[in-house]
Amino acid sequence: MKKNILILGGFGFIGSNLIEDFLKNGNFNVIVFEFRGLINRFANQIKVYYGDFNKEEDIEIVFQENQIDIVIHLISTTVPATSNDNVSYDINSNLIGTIKLLNIMLKYGVKRIIFPSSGGTVYGQIAGDSAKENDPTNPISSHGITKLSIEKYLLLYQHLHGLEYLILRVSNPFGMYHSSQKQGFINVVLKKIIKNEKIVVWGDGSAVRDYMYIKDLTFILTKIIENDIKNQIINIGSGVGVSIKEILNLLQNIVPNIEIVYESARNFDIPKIVLNVDKLKSMLDFSLTDLEKAIFLTYNWHKKNE
Amino acid sequence: MKKNILILGGFGFIGSNLIEDFLKNGNFNVIVFEFRGLINRFANQIKVYYGDFNKEEDIEIVFQENQIDIVIHLISTTVPATSNDNVSYDINSNLIGTIKLLNIMLKYGVKRIIFPSSGGTVYGQIAGDSAKENDPTNPISSHGITKLSIEKYLLLYQHLHGLEYLILRVSNPFGMYHSSQKQGFINVVLKKIIKNEKIVVWGDGSAVRDYMYIKDLTFILTKIIENDIKNQIINIGSGVGVSIKEILNLLQNIVPNIEIVYESARNFDIPKIVLNVDKLKSMLDFSLTDLEKAIFLTYNWHKKNE
Repeated sequence: MKKNILILGGFGFIGSNLIEDFLKNGNFNVIVFEFRGLINRFANQIKVYYGDFNKEEDIEIVFQENQIDIVIHLISTTVPATSNDNVSYDINSNLIGTIKLLNIMLKYGVKRIIFPSSGGTVYGQIAGDSAKENDPTNPISSHGITKLSIEKYLLLYQHLHGLEYLILRVSNPFGMYHSSQKQGFINVVLKKIIKNEKIVVWGDGSAVRDYMYIKDLTFILTKIIENDIKNQIINIGSGVGVSIKEILNLLQNIVPNIEIVYESARNFDIPKIVLNVDKLKSMLDFSLTDLEKAIFLTYNWHKKNE
Repeated sequence: MKKNILILGGFGFIGSNLIEDFLKNGNFNVIVFEFRGLINRFANQIKVYYGDFNKEEDIEIVFQENQIDIVIHLISTTVPATSNDNVSYDINSNLIGTIKLLNIMLKYGVKRIIFPSSGGTVYGQIAGDSAKENDPTNPISSHGITKLSIEKYLLLYQHLHGLEYLILRVSNPFGMYHSSQKQGFINVVLKKIIKNEKIVVWGDGSAVRDYMYIKDLTFILTKIIENDIKNQIINIGSGVGVSIKEILNLLQNIVPNIEIVYESARNFDIPKIVLNVDKLKSMLDFSLTDLEKAIFLTYNWHKKNE
């Protein structure tokens, strides 16, 4: 029988790509919960509930009306850049909002939740070449702390109530269906290039990140669900560190004469984050799209869709 | 010049002992903030503000009227046994309450906070003989998760705003001025012995804890303040694991014929927690009161004061 998957925040960047893959794959019934007003190209092919994530009655009705097998929780009300401005709001909307969700899941006997956490922020400043799942976690943004706190509550609910969790610490994905203006360096820059706007780089361009093509991420996520992997914390990334300068060099292969402005580094940006993906590799076979090719695919998608 | 120390929750177990030591020591002006209705034997020797920790205006007036040098934050609205029953309340009252406090401290330019965290709960189940400060932290109570989250926000506020924190992961203290009926095995048991009531042990008595005489804890805390130690996470405990059965044997040396009832272990109790105190020892010279002697002192104090 097809599994019923509820995607919270399904019309965002990761959600849209997941829905596309799930529709092609055909093994899942997809239900989406989203904030009111969000439109999406896949909306007419799936069942959609609109509401406020922080209103329990809006969430509960989805569970009343559907026998959900797996929840994929993609809702985040903040990004690292905004979370430090109002920490109480961040805790209230993300952490307490998620606790309410977990309690509703328990009430309706829904056992499985997949939580894409933030590989880019939960570790904070890393000591070695890359961050392993059991390395110290000292975020320098409230966004990272609430993600980490949610992780701890998922482990607690597994211990107390037998909830089956899957915590995926995702690196920096980029690619099609991206719309945020605040988060996602490669996509934001590509949109600016297409509009002939100048690019702002925070810092000197030496900051290193672990970039991953979104379709590799959703492929891996689908495999993880199909393979029934649960009660694990798993890094998902390329495992390779790439600096902003290297990204800009790759972009200049596509579009020469990009105008770049360097601004002071922001206090929530860490100099380097690369995820160690040995655990993921030990669990799944997968290959990653070449970075330059993935950037080119994303560039073409934006050109067609902006 | 004497430093002004604000003790939040100063009329609790640790607070009362601290106040007694500070009054003897004479190097600090002590101000206490407490929930309305709490009485205390030291109340007439110090300045006291009564209010609700979760009302910003109640906290703010203390900072308006006093130039505070150091905040010691002892307020906790839950214990491990109650925190799992209402997780949202735990997060709201403890975590968001503390964020409001930190923001008021920033507003009034108060730089230093000492936060006694929970050495007994933040680590969760430990793998080795004892828990080191940078070991994994996977609490099995919401109480432990909110303490851990507060720790993360203290590190964040140090990074963003230069706040000076001191996180003390305290083990299981016992001794005089203890009044809780819910927390603190040795004290709770001594009170029952004196009243000739039977003792309830959750589990088979093999659970191991790191017990510490309260006056050793407050001596160490005072030394840490005098030595100006800051921006550290430090375990404070005996470093020695003692089982409930061993405690009961020591008690039977004082009072024979104790009636003990064994009940099923509770799901928020871990089998073993012992703190590694090498870091503390490398920073301070101190010696600990012999466990049997400390239990005897506590027994005598309860006999006089119940």
